[in-house]
Amino acid sequence: MLTNNKLIKDLKHNLNSDNVLSAIEERYVYAQDATNSKTISHLPDAVVFVETTEQVQKVVTIANKYKTPIICRGAGTNVVGACRTDHGGIVLNFSKMNKIIEISRENMTATVQPGVIVGDLQKEAEKIGLFYPPDPSNLAVSTIGGSIAQSSGGAKTFKYGSTKDYVIDLKVVTAKGEILRTGSSTIKNATGYNLNSLFVGSEGTLGIVVEATLKLIPKPETKKVLMAYFDTIEDSVNAVNSIIEQRIYPATLDFMDKNAIQTVEKFYPAGLLCDKEAALIIEVDGFKNAIEYQQNIIVSILETCKASAIQYSTNEEEYEKIWTARRSSMGACAKLKPNVTTDDVIVPRKNLAKLVKGINEICQKYKLTVCMVGHVGDGSVHPQIPIDYRDEEEYRRFKLAKSEIYDLTAKLDGILSGEHGIGAEKRNYIHKVINNVALDYMRQIKKTLDPNNILNPYKIF
Amino acid sequence: MLTNNKLIKDLKHNLNSDNVLSAIEERYVYAQDATNSKTISHLPDAVVFVETTEQVQKVVTIANKYKTPIICRGAGTNVVGACRTDHGGIVLNFSKMNKIIEISRENMTATVQPGVIVGDLQKEAEKIGLFYPPDPSNLAVSTIGGSIAQSSGGAKTFKYGSTKDYVIDLKVVTAKGEILRTGSSTIKNATGYNLNSLFVGSEGTLGIVVEATLKLIPKPETKKVLMAYFDTIEDSVNAVNSIIEQRIYPATLDFMDKNAIQTVEKFYPAGLLCDKEAALIIEVDGFKNAIEYQQNIIVSILETCKASAIQYSTNEEEYEKIWTARRSSMGACAKLKPNVTTDDVIVPRKNLAKLVKGINEICQKYKLTVCMVGHVGDGSVHPQIPIDYRDEEEYRRFKLAKSEIYDLTAKLDGILSGEHGIGAEKRNYIHKVINNVALDYMRQIKKTLDPNNILNPYKIF
Repeated sequence: MLTNNKLIKDLKHNLNSDNVLSAIEERYVYAQDATNSKTISHLPDAVVFVETTEQVQKVVTIANKYKTPIICRGAGTNVVGACRTDHGGIVLNFSKMNKIIEISRENMTATVQPGVIVGDLQKEAEKIGLFYPPDPSNLAVSTIGGSIAQSSGGAKTFKYGSTKDYVIDLKVVTAKGEILRTGSSTIKNATGYNLNSLFVGSEGTLGIVVEATLKLIPKPETKKVLMAYFDTIEDSVNAVNSIIEQRIYPATLDFMDKNAIQTVEKFYPAGLLCDKEAALIIEVDGFKNAIEYQQNIIVSILETCKASAIQYSTNEEEYEKIWTARRSSMGACAKLKPNVTTDDVIVPRKNLAKLVKGINEICQKYKLTVCMVGHVGDGSVHPQIPIDYRDEEEYRRFKLAKSEIYDLTAKLDGILSGEHGIGAEKRNYIHKVINNVALDYMRQIKKTLDPNNILNPYKIF
Repeated sequence: MLTNNKLIKDLKHNLNSDNVLSAIEERYVYAQDATNSKTISHLPDAVVFVETTEQVQKVVTIANKYKTPIICRGAGTNVVGACRTDHGGIVLNFSKMNKIIEISRENMTATVQPGVIVGDLQKEAEKIGLFYPPDPSNLAVSTIGGSIAQSSGGAKTFKYGSTKDYVIDLKVVTAKGEILRTGSSTIKNATGYNLNSLFVGSEGTLGIVVEATLKLIPKPETKKVLMAYFDTIEDSVNAVNSIIEQRIYPATLDFMDKNAIQTVEKFYPAGLLCDKEAALIIEVDGFKNAIEYQQNIIVSILETCKASAIQYSTNEEEYEKIWTARRSSMGACAKLKPNVTTDDVIVPRKNLAKLVKGINEICQKYKLTVCMVGHVGDGSVHPQIPIDYRDEEEYRRFKLAKSEIYDLTAKLDGILSGEHGIGAEKRNYIHKVINNVALDYMRQIKKTLDPNNILNPYKIF
């Protein structure tokens, strides 16, 4: 506690003391994130709201002095415990470093501070006809810094890629407190090792991002969403394959399973068909005439692939209605039990139906409810499991189910995260999908770049 | 020489001896690559044609024993001396590891050996309606392994990204001879550090790629190319900006400068307009009706932006004619002097006109001819300089011009390579654009992953 007092004193002395929180109730608030983990082993020692790069450097100096962890935090919306403070330390809160520094129409780039909200950047870019495609479902609150840390994706990843595909340069404060620039202002770069991609998805374990330059692309003229129902998951996957065979490249190929459909309909009635095994949500974008052309082909494929009740948006309101239903799944699930968990497993698309069925079987075996939504195009599934953390026996079953879901994912040639990251929640399972040589490489890189192990330690592996 | 004899003996003993070349004329052939460097300080000690991963592992064991370099080689088409053997060592020739292992329509992935020709993969993918977009101009001979090493781009990078955006998994033999898997079979992955991207563009300095899994996308239905001439470089850049403002996302936005136009027309007459300062080559792809729509908008923009002699392809033959003119620039340049060099500098697009003009001024100052082609969309320029290596005085001027071009690029917030890499040719200049902290990071990573410095040493930095 003496060390802790000294740490707080040092932080307050070196920074604006109003930006340093240390009261127990304040520390409690920042001990975890949207993951809502069952247990928190330690509170952070302090929470620091940083406003400048120099302040970040000062915190790094202090953290090195006390060999205490630094846990960077944007909006704390990640769902893998990446911001959990199980080993104490300093939470670095970036909500005050939230400026869009520049959006360049001619370079098609945006330079932003890490606390900028993803949705805000999208809106600003769209004002000048540009587009930042990564669209994590929490984009109205989640930050660019968090997206970079977790390598966020979203529904449009199938066509447009994820955060890693848009980062062209990062200004990073290293574990030594130096300033590292990982890339360049150019949209292409083959000059030395690709440090951009090494930092994207590294969950704050290799350096602290204080500024990011992102690639933007021309905003598609318009978009349309189609929704269709299927009696089997296989039929929905076959429909997706047939659409792609016609050289159509939808922005989104999402799905909801029967439980997700029923749960959404129960709490947020939207006229969904509750007797169907799967709903497919297909978004196409581009020029108006090309969209009409694709719509006709898609509808014809869907009919051939035994789809029923095919709907499509004819205006913004109908577009939003379909997406609201898809996005309500987690919220609806949360009404079933006091807690709700989500996950993020991904397999090659040919194995997607097997994964969805297998997860259902595992959850039945362990008497758990599961609602599944995901991205058929990517082979990505988010199993949402409502749970009551107070019920120790249920929690035990839940942990067993998780482990079996990961085993199944590995067996189906998949991986433990496509777009959420690993954090604290899944680090004990990473060996199921990453071989020892690769893990050893990752650990060596971590040790080389963060020898004192102060940057978000004990995450990922 | 004794060590050298032992090395050859060890290689022949452990591998199929027919696959081990050691005669001086054979070693001479493999001492350098398409860069055609002026000097070669050392021949390789041996050239080994590998056929299996196990053979690669055996070579790594032997290289560690003798602390001798391993220089991986595909078709040797790189233009930065990445395959140069300035420190001797073993050239690992991958031309026999050239199998397309699998193209999966359902997963939209291809798994290939490193010796597969890029163009061959493209053709095979296209047979089933899929598309591998990276298109280095030498794709008829260059290999996937080489593209991965150099992070190759091509004319379509503006819309579709470069090699790094398509690698989802690599099987790598490490410096210790272990097998590392860098990614997964899934098209999205946020599970641990992004080792894929660390290896792509690392020019064989971190590990030896023995298998790659690549993402494919739906092949656009059709494509069309437009060509237009401008009286100033600025006008051509303005036209590009105006096209993008109309939410058009061309696959390609290439240019040729006056010297490139005139040199091509001199040696390969194609009816190009030799009095113009710049030609812009715009390719759009997608569904037929959308292309017609875009063509009308583009033609109207080009007219507003003072373009003259706007042509567009109406069939495959016309399409090829335009592209052949653009691609003939290097060949035409080669007819001006005994040798020809190319380069690869890139700046944010808003600085492109300044870069092109500045390169012209520098070359005039040093009495050098320069033909420039490049990718306006990316801000990327390839200055092609014909030279006679026997003329020492000219070579001295050439080296001074190079250094000034790199200084100018740095001043314009650019970087030394967008798609060719750094290799041996540009390593002495990398400090002009990469700060010491980043270089130190790269060196630390290299040292950690290749402690004996056997993997293509003395390249990049």
